[in-house]
Amino acid sequence: MERCPGSSHEYDCAFLDEAITDGRVAHGTSVREQYASDESPHAGRLPDAVVWPASTDEVAAVLAAANDRGVPVTPRSGGSGLEGNAIPTAGGIVLSTAEIEHVEVSPDDLQATVGAGVVYDDLNERLAPYGLRFAPGISSGDVATVGGMVATNASGFNAVRYGETRDHVRRLEVVTADGRVVECGRDVVKTSAGYSLKDLFVGSEGTLGVVTEVTLGLIGIPEHRRAALVTFPSRVDASGAVADAIGSALVPGAIEFIDTTAVKMLNAYRDDVSFEERPTLIIELHANNGGIEEDLAFAKAICEDHGMRSWEAAAEENLDDIWQARRDKYHATKAYREDWEVALVGDVVVPISAYPEIVDEVARASEDLDLMTSCVGHAGDGNLHFTPLVDPDDEEMLERAHELNERVVRTAISLGGSATGEHGVGIGKRQFMEGEHGPALDLMRSVKETFDPNGILNPGKVLPDS
Amino acid sequence: MERCPGSSHEYDCAFLDEAITDGRVAHGTSVREQYASDESPHAGRLPDAVVWPASTDEVAAVLAAANDRGVPVTPRSGGSGLEGNAIPTAGGIVLSTAEIEHVEVSPDDLQATVGAGVVYDDLNERLAPYGLRFAPGISSGDVATVGGMVATNASGFNAVRYGETRDHVRRLEVVTADGRVVECGRDVVKTSAGYSLKDLFVGSEGTLGVVTEVTLGLIGIPEHRRAALVTFPSRVDASGAVADAIGSALVPGAIEFIDTTAVKMLNAYRDDVSFEERPTLIIELHANNGGIEEDLAFAKAICEDHGMRSWEAAAEENLDDIWQARRDKYHATKAYREDWEVALVGDVVVPISAYPEIVDEVARASEDLDLMTSCVGHAGDGNLHFTPLVDPDDEEMLERAHELNERVVRTAISLGGSATGEHGVGIGKRQFMEGEHGPALDLMRSVKETFDPNGILNPGKVLPDS
Repeated sequence: MERCPGSSHEYDCAFLDEAITDGRVAHGTSVREQYASDESPHAGRLPDAVVWPASTDEVAAVLAAANDRGVPVTPRSGGSGLEGNAIPTAGGIVLSTAEIEHVEVSPDDLQATVGAGVVYDDLNERLAPYGLRFAPGISSGDVATVGGMVATNASGFNAVRYGETRDHVRRLEVVTADGRVVECGRDVVKTSAGYSLKDLFVGSEGTLGVVTEVTLGLIGIPEHRRAALVTFPSRVDASGAVADAIGSALVPGAIEFIDTTAVKMLNAYRDDVSFEERPTLIIELHANNGGIEEDLAFAKAICEDHGMRSWEAAAEENLDDIWQARRDKYHATKAYREDWEVALVGDVVVPISAYPEIVDEVARASEDLDLMTSCVGHAGDGNLHFTPLVDPDDEEMLERAHELNERVVRTAISLGGSATGEHGVGIGKRQFMEGEHGPALDLMRSVKETFDPNGILNPGKVLPDS
Repeated sequence: MERCPGSSHEYDCAFLDEAITDGRVAHGTSVREQYASDESPHAGRLPDAVVWPASTDEVAAVLAAANDRGVPVTPRSGGSGLEGNAIPTAGGIVLSTAEIEHVEVSPDDLQATVGAGVVYDDLNERLAPYGLRFAPGISSGDVATVGGMVATNASGFNAVRYGETRDHVRRLEVVTADGRVVECGRDVVKTSAGYSLKDLFVGSEGTLGVVTEVTLGLIGIPEHRRAALVTFPSRVDASGAVADAIGSALVPGAIEFIDTTAVKMLNAYRDDVSFEERPTLIIELHANNGGIEEDLAFAKAICEDHGMRSWEAAAEENLDDIWQARRDKYHATKAYREDWEVALVGDVVVPISAYPEIVDEVARASEDLDLMTSCVGHAGDGNLHFTPLVDPDDEEMLERAHELNERVVRTAISLGGSATGEHGVGIGKRQFMEGEHGPALDLMRSVKETFDPNGILNPGKVLPDS
């Protein structure tokens, strides 16, 4: 470990200028400051250097050199993480994969091989002319990259029908901590050939290796889409309709829950909308044949069973209007009180039958703790996001927000669920891993030690200190 | 390592009678002989003892004791493996999970928690009253167990729509080599909480731990099913139709390829059938709405584009007739020449666009090597099985069959494919792992050493000797 006493740098990262020779290294404070934090509310930390390798070989050169010197490396892609996944908590190097952005489409194989730095929305724009799509449907698709999505096993709106990022990854190219380049998986839809290392890297948040290239399975863009905005008398009615829909033969393209507080914030955010201020679902259906109308009627009947108050179905060309509401939600929350801030973005997941219970728990806990909390969720997956707003100058209030998070996460785990459905563990969820995984945590630690014996890769993430 | 000189036993397994106290241990030769081999043509080997633990705790007791003594343990379930996956190649103990057969269904969560010893068809019988199904659709479902399917990441007819076993596993209970019981994964449809150890155990063939319990995601039994038996002028036409169908918006419930040789064998096997002796596809469609007729017409149009010679569509109640042909295929092959035997069951998988190429390669290689080889395949996955028949007394002929396998596997790998789509590596595919995985094989070896430092778990499988 080389320290650099007398400067503000903890690690001497001059070696990067040898590994990356054409200037894609920054040692200056202003750039380092930009890479000290991510989209999350977690406290940032200055890295000692930032590097943008443009190829797998350059990533390998950086890692081999950093590993020899014991210098921490925090991989980063879009920086849209909500749990501090890309904050360089131990200093050292931030390694951005943003420059690795090649795309090769194999339409006949419903497959694309892409660099880790390719942005989700950009990829889908490239795929659209082929009638294909990378399907998890994440909220921050204008920023999030494929590499980052693999790192956190991200997903979103459409995971209920098409699965999480993991379900689409066929092959990964990964650089190990000591700079070896390995291929994990094959360009096929299934295989039984040995240990699925690719699945070990998916969701490991750059703590086991740095993903440089991904072969993704794609889906055909559905020929028919319908959506409806549905309101209910209570949150329990709305979430009960979700559980019933999933337990039925329906496989929705998306099914989103928006609570009354979130609807109020949306109405306040935009002058041109006026939603009914009730618990709301957005249900979207996909099909490649005319059977979609039958499905829509079936979905409506389920909502009627749960006392639905209004049903606004959209034609194909107006789907975006309905979705705009959900897409604005995060910004509407942040804007709701100018002087207040988002304390955290909760991300629990529970068995679908427990969805009404977890929705209710967030509401009760917010009341008990006197917090203003809005909820949305990829309800069809049992995934719920909750966003308490706090006065940033009120330490005690912020503490109550963290108490809310802790209470809801522990409830989710006790219901058989998980501390995080799609944001990853990062910094914020490490404290819950013991409760969620129990003895399996020791195996995870062994895996970490095997893959990264010097502990240089994204230190301080995923696994709690032992 | 305790040897037992002067007896036919290599390892002294008397300790098992302390770990399992109620008689579910066999040391006698006749039982040991039954567990020396599996359904594969690979040479068997006598274990020193066979044990049937009835609970997770008993599995843990056996493994802890065996690990202390360095006694090999080969886990076994249905014994229907086709690559010698359950042959105790190093002697020691065969640990059967057949007695662990509890089933708990959570219909609202589309989920079931089952013991490793539960047989696939039995499980689906238990699930049918709920309208639910564990969906990979394997051929040997009357014998194969859930534990064995997890071990090899098995799949079959319906994987093209619903995925492999991996895609359905939400949580595993696993006993490690040293007897620790760990839970991997949660009872939810998605999670981003740490390393996906469950995915590491799926497909590891009992070399990293013994799976005792599995929580499976289920699908709703489709309300509508249609199927058609379609014949084509040539194998390239038939496999071209498959590639086109998968590249289209159609998501078939199953799409099976049967070559002319296989059809001839089927005609010879049963007096009551007479199929047209041409390359054939079985296409099955699933839907929960009336759109299925539109899909069927679409599938037919694709087949017409590829010069289809006949199209026999079945009503829902006659689907089994069409499928019987495919189900009989393995037995028909074995029965075709009384004095000949199946040399091996090939199991390659390729990118779907390369399906015509691999189908052609098997035919050409069989001709070059003067072998009678029948082919079937879960074509929609790019998965092809090929079965050369040989005179068991003709060593040279058997060698040619292995040459065929090697040639086809190496071609599949060179096309971006895999040595095994669903049977696993076992003994037979170890030699191809270096070619398929390259440097990733070193990481696999590290994982094996981390999880099983004494090397007691299913030695001689999956990883080639280094």
